Amino acid sequence: MDTRTVAAEFTRLCKEGKADEAGARFWSDKVVSIEAMDGPMARCNGLKEVQAKGEWWYANHDVHSFETEGPYVNGDQFALQFKIDVTPKNGEMAGKRMQMTEVGLYTVKDGKVVEERFFY
Amino acid sequence: MDTRTVAAEFTRLCKEGKADEAGARFWSDKVVSIEAMDGPMARCNGLKEVQAKGEWWYANHDVHSFETEGPYVNGDQFALQFKIDVTPKNGEMAGKRMQMTEVGLYTVKDGKVVEERFFY
Repeated sequence: MDTRTVAAEFTRLCKEGKADEAGARFWSDKVVSIEAMDGPMARCNGLKEVQAKGEWWYANHDVHSFETEGPYVNGDQFALQFKIDVTPKNGEMAGKRMQMTEVGLYTVKDGKVVEERFFY
Repeated sequence: MDTRTVAAEFTRLCKEGKADEAGARFWSDKVVSIEAMDGPMARCNGLKEVQAKGEWWYANHDVHSFETEGPYVNGDQFALQFKIDVTPKNGEMAGKRMQMTEVGLYTVKDGKVVEERFFY
């Protein structure tokens, strides 16, 4: 499955609100996930850590809407833009509703996502 | 000048319709520009080739609008989303008005853009 095909299918699932299913289907066992912040989840190595980050995120945020635009492809990479409307449940931002826009950059190898990198 | 500062200033100029000025100010002499297509301009190496590509593009397109969203930053890179409404003046698409959305990914070193990569 080439990058454009992976990108199309991954994006279709995200647009249907199935970002978790997109990950389950396309993350490589060795996927690396890189956030644009310091802290324990700045870099997650491997499927288990990346899945755990996702589970933490969904458990700790009320997601009011999650919109996906794209995909935008170049070579073995594709980008998506996310518009996210959430309220954190815990921490110093608890209860504060926020609208965020991010870009996710995905690198594909052998039909799997081997790296995801988030920009904000 | 760190990546976030370069990103903010580069983006400000793009939002003011001064993408050429953003390039003139921030492109490294050794900047590499990578398009998501085959052909002679798929990869431009160095300031002169990148400037020539820009001049070709502006000379061959009627630009009705050019919107920039961002910046989205991670480490030494930032991403922008462009919404472009153009009519090509020449070639097989001449006279056909098109709306395109792209993502530009910029890599910064020593306060200069050393690579730009476009996704569509």
